[in-house]
Amino acid sequence: MTSAVNSLQDCLQLDEQDPLRSLRGLFDLPDGLIYLDGNSLGALPRAAPERLAQAITQEWGQGLIRSWNSAGWFELPRRVGDKIARLIGARAGEVLALDSTSINLYKVLSAALQIARHDAPGRKIVLSERSNFPTDLYIAQSLCEQHGMELRLVESGQLQQALDDDVAVLLLTHVNYRTGAMHDMAAVGALAHRCGALCVWDLAHSAGAVELDLHAAQADFAVGCGYKYLNGGPGAPAFLWVHPRHSERFWQPLSGWWGHAQPFAFEPGYRPAAGIGRYQCGTQPMLSLIALDVGVDTVLAAEPLGGMAALRRKSLALTRLFAHLLQQRLAGHGLSVVSPQDDDQRGSHISLTRAHGAYAIVQALIERGVVGDFRAGDGSAHPDILRFGVCPLYTRYVDIWHAVDRLQQVMSSGAWQDAKYGQQQSVT
Amino acid sequence: MTSAVNSLQDCLQLDEQDPLRSLRGLFDLPDGLIYLDGNSLGALPRAAPERLAQAITQEWGQGLIRSWNSAGWFELPRRVGDKIARLIGARAGEVLALDSTSINLYKVLSAALQIARHDAPGRKIVLSERSNFPTDLYIAQSLCEQHGMELRLVESGQLQQALDDDVAVLLLTHVNYRTGAMHDMAAVGALAHRCGALCVWDLAHSAGAVELDLHAAQADFAVGCGYKYLNGGPGAPAFLWVHPRHSERFWQPLSGWWGHAQPFAFEPGYRPAAGIGRYQCGTQPMLSLIALDVGVDTVLAAEPLGGMAALRRKSLALTRLFAHLLQQRLAGHGLSVVSPQDDDQRGSHISLTRAHGAYAIVQALIERGVVGDFRAGDGSAHPDILRFGVCPLYTRYVDIWHAVDRLQQVMSSGAWQDAKYGQQQSVT
Repeated sequence: MTSAVNSLQDCLQLDEQDPLRSLRGLFDLPDGLIYLDGNSLGALPRAAPERLAQAITQEWGQGLIRSWNSAGWFELPRRVGDKIARLIGARAGEVLALDSTSINLYKVLSAALQIARHDAPGRKIVLSERSNFPTDLYIAQSLCEQHGMELRLVESGQLQQALDDDVAVLLLTHVNYRTGAMHDMAAVGALAHRCGALCVWDLAHSAGAVELDLHAAQADFAVGCGYKYLNGGPGAPAFLWVHPRHSERFWQPLSGWWGHAQPFAFEPGYRPAAGIGRYQCGTQPMLSLIALDVGVDTVLAAEPLGGMAALRRKSLALTRLFAHLLQQRLAGHGLSVVSPQDDDQRGSHISLTRAHGAYAIVQALIERGVVGDFRAGDGSAHPDILRFGVCPLYTRYVDIWHAVDRLQQVMSSGAWQDAKYGQQQSVT
Repeated sequence: MTSAVNSLQDCLQLDEQDPLRSLRGLFDLPDGLIYLDGNSLGALPRAAPERLAQAITQEWGQGLIRSWNSAGWFELPRRVGDKIARLIGARAGEVLALDSTSINLYKVLSAALQIARHDAPGRKIVLSERSNFPTDLYIAQSLCEQHGMELRLVESGQLQQALDDDVAVLLLTHVNYRTGAMHDMAAVGALAHRCGALCVWDLAHSAGAVELDLHAAQADFAVGCGYKYLNGGPGAPAFLWVHPRHSERFWQPLSGWWGHAQPFAFEPGYRPAAGIGRYQCGTQPMLSLIALDVGVDTVLAAEPLGGMAALRRKSLALTRLFAHLLQQRLAGHGLSVVSPQDDDQRGSHISLTRAHGAYAIVQALIERGVVGDFRAGDGSAHPDILRFGVCPLYTRYVDIWHAVDRLQQVMSSGAWQDAKYGQQQSVT
């Protein structure tokens, strides 16, 4: 289908035939903006302002302290967690929405290391990819020092080879934040378990964007982000999942009162709550958590239309179209696609690179109403990246058309070479 | 002055003469409600709904990812931290507003333990009070296990005696959440330093309510709460302070990317940021942090009227009045004040106890429009508590009059004995 798309008219027709087209109406998007950065900050759900105004003026303003019970604030990390569970192949009672991804990774990785030390004390390695999102590596580095273990970083292609009898935990991000390359979670899970290692997944660029089945993939722990494809708003709380076979084996070290068996007994000694409850720590930022609740609902709104499978189909069609139009219209401009061509290996964003000028091109596009983002390379193995995320809830085929069209204008006019687009750092 | 107050009329007159009376107008309080639980969840600032609506619809909705720079989201933990610094005797650049109190305590206590292990390796004790807020003890318990140290808990009166050469860190909450008893921070700080111990303070029930001078008190680390007297909204981010002499000595273990020297260089290895920056971990919940910003502004609004000193004077006058009216009007009902009588030893709430019925009395009062709260005792040393917090920004003298008046009605009518007010757990 995609290869036959050669005009704006073709894209308009694809949007008309899109079974998910009604979902865009759930969002309040700026007029005329082509937003291809929902993988960094999801768009504003139309229901969010009113729901939040009610939470602010009624629940906080009028209900005050009573709202912890009457407005269900206490239960919100679990209630939102149960909703997220439906998107990632987990079950009710296994997921919490709270804290940040980094903090949640600290909790679950620390539990994984305790389990590994107990069950396989000879294993001293946490294995990950050098190209993993850095915060995951920093947290792993901290916990390895704490537990007398070692963080081993390899290139993506070397994982299988590096997965030996010394590996206690395999820590991976499912979809790479730079390239969009996606692991085969089930295959990796099977491999890790055959080798005797635990699998910890970061779903930051997966949850809400690709189909996930943590149980089928033999995953052990997972964390993920609330403000990307879950549309929870800036810095929305993150989530964590613990396989029920692990949840009560050890304490996680952030043993705050919300994770106590009886937080309101105010006992001086810690007794962890049953199940996933012990992965709570302190009081959660309710306004941001309520926004996340609304955001997750936008993804669940796809359920009657085919759910994650339908979202995934559209996401792939959009990134395929992007690559197709690039090939058709931008040959000779030095841009190459670094995201995998194979649908099974690609998440929901598409990344380009260029020998130089990546930052300036992204800036020139933003000025022309196409918001993607730039990720700096390391000057060697990993090049500078121009990143364009599609969110099948609200990205249209015509958005892809216009994005490539303006990229073509920026390149062929040389507009990106204007000094005002000078090199600098950018934002997640 | 207080001892001459014998009528509603007297209280009305005190309100008229109150130099801070205009500040109540900064809040949107439910009509007719007497809210004496601002020590648990501060009231809604009148400016919050509009500021948050702008953040939601404009910054998130229209600005989208660009708002991390254009709306100053990145800098908000520091900017709000700098404001809080003015309330606690810290300097700009020393305070961050982020995460939860429990998580911040984990960061600073872990840094304190690393410093102690380095500077005084023989010291193996973290000393605290058995009556400290439990989450502080749970976090200390976790870190003591991690560092091969021991948590020693004593009753409040035994602190001086227990502060010996084995103590690495003294961990105290400045104002006790149950009794309202307040430590003399400077005296304790001097004592601890003479003994060679580091001082870590929890300011949950102090910041925004009592005058604080962390530098003068020779404090080493501090954490505090955003949703109580700082009026930051339900579960607002907390704050932390590190004395500049400590801030770069060690890493704290929650080494997420926001605490990296160059978060957007995306390096695989962690390099902590300079100064307080390394106490950041992951992305912060912006909507809740913006609400906290507005809340802190309500406290800063007192600066032209005398600031924290004026707020403290009024807070003491209000709790003194409460105790005076209780004595005058509730003798013989078995209620006794457990908060210190001495102004220098009392925070901003007043706590009562009764041999039985404390929970039911609080419930009966709530039903009659007086919101205080109940804190369960442990059946031995620490009795059940009826807790009434005053917030000098919005609590009026007449509120105290009506609260005691309704308490008198509830007690003398025996209304609290109605079975519908049965015993159960309550909320922070």
